[in-house]
This record gives sequence, structure tokens and C-alpha cells, in this order.
Amino acid sequence: MGPDRVVIFDTTLRDGEQSPGISLNATEKLEIAHQLARLGVDVIEAGFPIASPGDFEAVRAIAREVHGPVIAGLARAHAADVERAAEAVRDAERPRIHTFISTSDIHIEHQLQSTREDVKGSARAAVAHAKSFVDDVEFSPMDATRADAEFTAEVVQIALDEGATTINVPDTVGYATPQEYARFLTRLYELVPGLRDVVLSVHCHDDLGLAVANTLAGVQAGARQVECAVNGIGERAGNASLEEFVMLLATRAADLGFATGVNTREIARTSRMVSRLTGYPVQPNKAIVGRNAFAHESGIHQDGVLKDRSTYEIMDATTVGLEGNDLVLGKHSGRHALKSALQELGFSVEGQALNTAFKRFKEIADRKKTVTAMDLEALVTDELRDGLRSYTLKWFDVDVSNRRPPHARVAVQTPDGDEVLGDFTGDGPVDAIFRAINAATRREARLREFRIDAVTAGQDALGEASVVLELSGQSASGQGVSTDIIEAAAQAYVRALSNCERKVLAHAQQPALPEAELTPAP
Amino acid sequence: MGPDRVVIFDTTLRDGEQSPGISLNATEKLEIAHQLARLGVDVIEAGFPIASPGDFEAVRAIAREVHGPVIAGLARAHAADVERAAEAVRDAERPRIHTFISTSDIHIEHQLQSTREDVKGSARAAVAHAKSFVDDVEFSPMDATRADAEFTAEVVQIALDEGATTINVPDTVGYATPQEYARFLTRLYELVPGLRDVVLSVHCHDDLGLAVANTLAGVQAGARQVECAVNGIGERAGNASLEEFVMLLATRAADLGFATGVNTREIARTSRMVSRLTGYPVQPNKAIVGRNAFAHESGIHQDGVLKDRSTYEIMDATTVGLEGNDLVLGKHSGRHALKSALQELGFSVEGQALNTAFKRFKEIADRKKTVTAMDLEALVTDELRDGLRSYTLKWFDVDVSNRRPPHARVAVQTPDGDEVLGDFTGDGPVDAIFRAINAATRREARLREFRIDAVTAGQDALGEASVVLELSGQSASGQGVSTDIIEAAAQAYVRALSNCERKVLAHAQQPALPEAELTPAP
Repeated sequence: MGPDRVVIFDTTLRDGEQSPGISLNATEKLEIAHQLARLGVDVIEAGFPIASPGDFEAVRAIAREVHGPVIAGLARAHAADVERAAEAVRDAERPRIHTFISTSDIHIEHQLQSTREDVKGSARAAVAHAKSFVDDVEFSPMDATRADAEFTAEVVQIALDEGATTINVPDTVGYATPQEYARFLTRLYELVPGLRDVVLSVHCHDDLGLAVANTLAGVQAGARQVECAVNGIGERAGNASLEEFVMLLATRAADLGFATGVNTREIARTSRMVSRLTGYPVQPNKAIVGRNAFAHESGIHQDGVLKDRSTYEIMDATTVGLEGNDLVLGKHSGRHALKSALQELGFSVEGQALNTAFKRFKEIADRKKTVTAMDLEALVTDELRDGLRSYTLKWFDVDVSNRRPPHARVAVQTPDGDEVLGDFTGDGPVDAIFRAINAATRREARLREFRIDAVTAGQDALGEASVVLELSGQSASGQGVSTDIIEAAAQAYVRALSNCERKVLAHAQQPALPEAELTPAP
Repeated sequence: MGPDRVVIFDTTLRDGEQSPGISLNATEKLEIAHQLARLGVDVIEAGFPIASPGDFEAVRAIAREVHGPVIAGLARAHAADVERAAEAVRDAERPRIHTFISTSDIHIEHQLQSTREDVKGSARAAVAHAKSFVDDVEFSPMDATRADAEFTAEVVQIALDEGATTINVPDTVGYATPQEYARFLTRLYELVPGLRDVVLSVHCHDDLGLAVANTLAGVQAGARQVECAVNGIGERAGNASLEEFVMLLATRAADLGFATGVNTREIARTSRMVSRLTGYPVQPNKAIVGRNAFAHESGIHQDGVLKDRSTYEIMDATTVGLEGNDLVLGKHSGRHALKSALQELGFSVEGQALNTAFKRFKEIADRKKTVTAMDLEALVTDELRDGLRSYTLKWFDVDVSNRRPPHARVAVQTPDGDEVLGDFTGDGPVDAIFRAINAATRREARLREFRIDAVTAGQDALGEASVVLELSGQSASGQGVSTDIIEAAAQAYVRALSNCERKVLAHAQQPALPEAELTPAP
């Protein structure tokens, strides 16, 4: 008998995308969804369709264009939510509706300001309604780990009676310990024998550092679906990290006896793509995908690894795609070589997009000796960000010195095609150029975060800037890539400004639905 | 009966400091050790004295100047190591020697190229030797979780016979699951009844994302000392994160029944100091100390928190020191106000250091409307980096534009007091200024990493640059703080260059001890 198969349900685009400051557009979400399909996840939770027209469009595009995984849309236990989710996932090969309602008294009383009876009624109606659109219906009793097991079991039984095919038990606030979580699931099995006939799912948050361990405890208690996110992003301290859980099962397969369908060699690239598009860095000591996860610094460890890798390595860096990627282009590489290299990286780039990518590639190749796979990833991901109604940076000049205040001049093209000029004398060159952009565009955007990272090592590395701005109560991020960090910063700023402005416009156009503003996270 | 007290053994300065690219000088280590004492850890593992003269000096300085915690020095199971550690911790109020040797066959055969019999002899001799210097002796069977339990028990029995007072069982390669780890410890208790009379300790690595869960499993199996590091830094994916484990015990105290002596309100500041001095960023979704650990993005969560914080918060941000820190200075604040503010933050700054800090403070206050506690922390930490033999940036001019290549001119003062000039036309302003510094100092330093972060939010935020350089086979990091990121980057570069050069010099002067190059990590 082989290992037990665990379904990987990726919520990077739903719970992950709810992290503060992340604002993926539909193109970016689609690109991540394609990469998740290449990674081999079983289910992609593509978004929360009723939350906004943008969310709806992104889920629908993913449902239509991404093949392989089940495509799920989230819905509170309301008819309108369920209908919107059903419409968004309708064209998927295998659509799923995921509906939820809290079963903890603390949520029922304070959040929902409702009663246990009403919760049961809502759950019954929502699952039944979802079932009228799709066969594959998932139900989550939110905040279950802080809820009464008996009441949660009643609600789960109702969901099963109405035809739910997956029951997900979220540790919404990251409160449980592995033993408690396993006990809670075991108790649910006792109270709801029918649970054995469907898929039990776990969804763990990392507030106390236990998300992966709780997920493992859940699987050992009988769960066969795991909800997780790339790089462990998500509300607050995030969800269980997909890469950590998958590599735990893979590395300890002989002892644990579980397997997933994930192609682990796609892990590193998926992690980089998600980090780049969300603007969320991965810390160097992050397990599996951190820069140092496979580095050995101390003399004893290096000495041991040279003698025999197994002395200090329980995983091989090539199995997660961190090494063995030696694709390199140079300034003499042509359009065809670029297209092949991009295809090898999983990017299908054609027509005008290929022309733009080739132009950017040539600019970079003129400045850098070699253009690596990681440089190409950064460039292509950078290009994905354009194409929407936005500001464009035309040119800039900055004078920087520690002997006089820095002065910046910029020219920006507005969404209407006008070229506007601005200048500013600031505290630093970035401050000066950001304020010059504000002056040119006559926007009072407020800088909330700013970061610059190098894409690759070396003196001629590409710099990647990430900016989070706030404008009229809406916040959004933007990224920019260049060998010049001032240029990268200015690019990131105009993109963040464009994203903010789109959010402000969307918010102004949206009817004031009291429900629609409530984006949830089980 | 109250909760069981768990001893917190902090290894930030030993295992944490072994992370690639971290190179703390003695002043920085001392500052972190003082902060760890304020945080209330029970044991500070201050370093590995035989590894280098710098390590020895740092451990000795901490032993002499830091009061409260036990001060431990690490030693392999060799007489020379034990003697060096004994000398380094001798002046501590409560000194400890921590000695170790591997008990796994994979390490004994491939790493030590030794036999089980020799391992037993070495362990016996090392513990006995350590005991001749100090009462408080800790012994670790390295790679224990991959070792034969019976053989490990024999070695542990030997350590106990020779007087070891703490037995630490490391999961050196981060391989164990919580259940396995608990079973292994339970088996050791069965095989070595005398283990009940000393303190059992756990040391877990996070390679599979299980460090905190394994630590908890260890404590539940009887361990009463926990080895951990601030921000979870350490070899590869790092050690169990101190803040996660401490807050797990605090948040779940009623159910778990364990307590520590940590003042949790010092957690955020300690995390920031360690991140700043090591140059290791904390990812936004890191539990407890990540920027988003207490942020609520989704509408439902925000709505819930406004109605009742307990709906989505299991911890209060003020308990970890993330809020309630509203100390603010302005341009009219005087030297006395600065000194009081610094004292409130735990920094005792006097004489010339206060003059320098005040001068820097005034420069910043001229550019920023308000100077916050976090700005002050960054400034003071920045000042700690000087005072050693080093290069100093005197002035620079950079011309940046996307219409012509950026050009930089710099003046650098050498350690000998000469002012040297350099200039360079580069790919970006940072590239240009870095190469201009190389030209001025005639050094061929290679950039390995570069990062810029904002210290606080807002347009006039301080930028903090971090650079890792490689020079003649040695790598070291440097940080710089300024409202001008080009200046911060240049500062970071000259400091990294100074640190590299000191390492190169130290390496050239050191006698070629075959053992001394092997820095270990249980």
C-alpha cells in the first residue's frame, strides 16, 4: 500500500492576498495561478468574488484559463455571496464553492451579533444553495478551534446533510496547539460519523508559530486536505507555509506515510514569484525558501557537508529548485533565445509583450555581463504590472550629495497621455523624487513602506524596489526593477500611485453594500 | 501550585551569530547581551571562545559586564576548548561551560571519523574538565535525534556521572516531528533515571517548520530549559524563535501550565535591535514580531476587532512592546531630553558618545518633524558600529538620471587618517558610489548583498541600508542609517569594508589551528 495522498489547497490568492498592502491585479493573479498549476497544487482558492468587481474578474479569469487544479471561490453563508462565487467559477473545468460561517460563541455574539439557531439556518441554506450550482462544495465552521465541539458538530452535520463534500476546520486565530487540534478533530469524527465519508480539511494560522505542526497533527488525525499559502503569507502571521508542509511530508515520507502531488522543483520559483508580485520579502532564515535555508556557515558544518552531505543536510537544494538552474543569456542573445528561455521558465510571452520584454532585456544585457534565470523572472514579472490605466515615468534627473540637499526633476505621463513635470528638493534622493512625482501628478500620496532588494548577487545586480502608498484612504503597493535603485524606486512609486488611484476610483464607483466590504478569512 | 518555570537559554549570540553574513563586533554583542538581560532570559550563550580571539573577547566582556543571566561559553569535547571557554566566562556572576559531542553514527563516522568508544571517552573527559572550572556544566549529545537512543543514553549517563547539571538534546538538523522528539526524550528518561535530577534542555532547528512545536513537545515531555534565538536566527532555517515560544507559553498559560521569566514588553525592541545589528530582516508575516503579526486587513476581521478585540486577537500588541511607545522628540529637544529618552529605551549613553548621538539627533531633527523611539534606536545602534579601526565616508556627490549614466565622486578617510578620493561612472547610483569607494580605497571588494529598509513609516522616514561584502575570502556586513538612502548605502558599504578588512587581518594573524576553524552548532 502506497502513501496516503493529501490534497493541497492553495489559498495564496485568497487568504494570502488579504495581507496588508498586497494588491494584486488580475494579470498578476492569473500569472500566480498558472504557476500554482505548474507547481501541482490540487485546489486553487482564487479569491472572494463578492468582495469587489476586481476580485470577481480575477476569479473568473483563473476559472477560464487555468487548467488542472480545482478552482474555488469563497462565499460567506449568504445567498448573494454564493451566487457571485458560482458565477465566477462557473467556467472552470472543476469548480468549487467554499462557504463558511463562524461557530464560536465569541464570533456569533460579537461579530455576527446573531444566535446559534440562525447560524445553523444560514449554514444549511448556503450549502444547499451552493450545491444547486456545483457538486463540489466546501464548508468551514470559522473559528472552530475556539468553538463548542458539540455545536460545531451540529453545524457540520447540517453541511453534510446538504451535500458538502469537504469539511474544513479552521484555526482562524492561530490559537490551537497540535494536541488540542488533533483532539478537536477526533472529537468531531466521534460526533459526526458521516465525516468519514467526505474529505476533512485543515486551515492553520501561524500566530504562535505552530501552523505547520498543527497541519501535520490534523493530517495525522485524519484530514486529507491541507489549506496553505506560498511563503506562509496570509492574515497577521499568515497561513501554514505550503513549501514547509510539502517538504515535511516529502522529507519524512518513509516515517509519516503521506504524499502530495506537488512538483517540489517548482517551489523556489513559485516562492520568488509570489514574493515579487506581493512585495512581501522572505526572511533569510525562513525554512525551505529562505536564502540561508541550505547555507552552511560554521566551519564544523561546512567541514561535515564536504565529507558527507547527509551530516547536516536532510534535504537537497535541487529538490526545491534552488540549484541546477544555470540558464544564462548575454548581450548577443536574440529574440528567439529570449523566447525559449522564457518558455523554459514557464512564461508564455508573445507579440507586443515579447517585444517589450526583448527591449528591456537588451537594456539590461548592455549593463550586465550575464542575464540569469532570476533576472529574467524579475523582468517578466515587472512587465506584468503594466498594461492597465496608469502613470508612466518618462525621465528623471537627481542631484545627490551630502554637501547640499538633493534635488529631483521628473516627467510623468498621466493616464490621459499628458506629460507633466515636477521638481522637489528633499531630504534624500528618494524623498526628493517621490515628492517630485507627487508635485507632477498633483497627488498627495503618503509613503507607508519602502524597500529595496537585490535580485541577484554581485555588483551589477538588478535592484528591486517595493513601495506601499496611501491615497484617499486606499493603500496599494508597486514594484520596480532596474540596475539603478533610484529608477527602480521611482518606477515602484508611479506604479503604487497608479494602483492606489484605481482602488480609489473602484471604491468611489462601488455601491455601498454593507456586506461587500467584509472580506473574511476562515 | 503555580505554573512550571521554564529556563530560557538564548543562543542568539552563538548559534544565531553563526548565520551566513552576520559579523557582530564585541560592542554590538555586548549591547545585545545587555538587552537580553533586560528581556529577562535566564542564560545567555555568549559565543564559542576558541573559535577566534574576537569570539573570546566578546564572551569575556559579556561575562564581566552583563549582570543577571548565567553566561555560557561553548566548547567542543576537547581540553583546549574547555579551557578557553572557562577562561572566557570566569568573571561572570554565574558562569557555565556548555560542551558537546555528536552521538549519531552518521556524525561519528563521517564528521568525527571516530568511534563510539572514543566519543564516550571524550565526553567523560570534557565534562570532568569543565567541572574542574565551574559547577554549572551543560552537555549536549549533538545530532541526538538521528542517533541511537541506547548509545545516546550511555553518553548522557557518563556526562551525569561526571557532574553535568544540564543535559541538552539537540535536533541539530531540524529533522524530528513533535511526536518523535517527545518519544525520544521519554525513552532517554527511561534509560537514564538520573536525568530526573538535572535539567533537561531542548534545542530545535526549523528546517521543516517545526522548531516551536518540537520545543513545546520537549517541554511537555519534561524539559525545563529551552534553547532559542531572537527572530529565530541560526544555522540554515535557524533555531526555535524565542518570541514565538515565550508568547505561546504566555498566551496559553492557563492550558499549558508553564511560565518563563521573560518581560514580554521588551520583545519588540529586542527583535529590532537584533535585526538591525545582524542585518537580518524579519518578514512581515513572521509570528509575534513581523510588521503584520497584529495587523488586520480584511473587512470582516477589522469589523470584528472593532466590535470586540478578542474576535480575532489572541494577544495584545502592547504585551510584546509593539505599541504604547509614544516617546517623541523634536528639533527643540535638548541634550538632557535626549539622554532621558535614551535611558528610557535602555541605552546608557555618556560623554563623547552622547555628544555624537546629540549631533546626529540634531541633524535628523532638522530634516524630520518628529524623532520617534524607533528613530532613536536606529541612531544609537548606528553609532555602536564606530569606534574601531575603520574607513570613514567624508563626502560624496552623485549625479543620477535615466538620460545618462550615473557618476559618483567620494572622499574616504582611511584607518591611517589619510583622505583618499575616487570616482566612477556606474550602472546605477549605488553601483557608482560603491565602485568609487573601491577606487578610493584601492580595494576589490565584491558586493554579495544589498538591502534598504525604512525605519519608520512616512515620507521623511530614516532609511537603513545593509551591505554584505566579500574581500579576500572573508565576508562581513555593514549597516548605515540616514534620510538619504545613497548616504545610508555608502555608509553601510564603508562599514562592511572596514569589517571585512578587520576579518582579513585577524585571519592572517591567526595561527593555523586545525581545530579552531571548526565552529560548531549543536
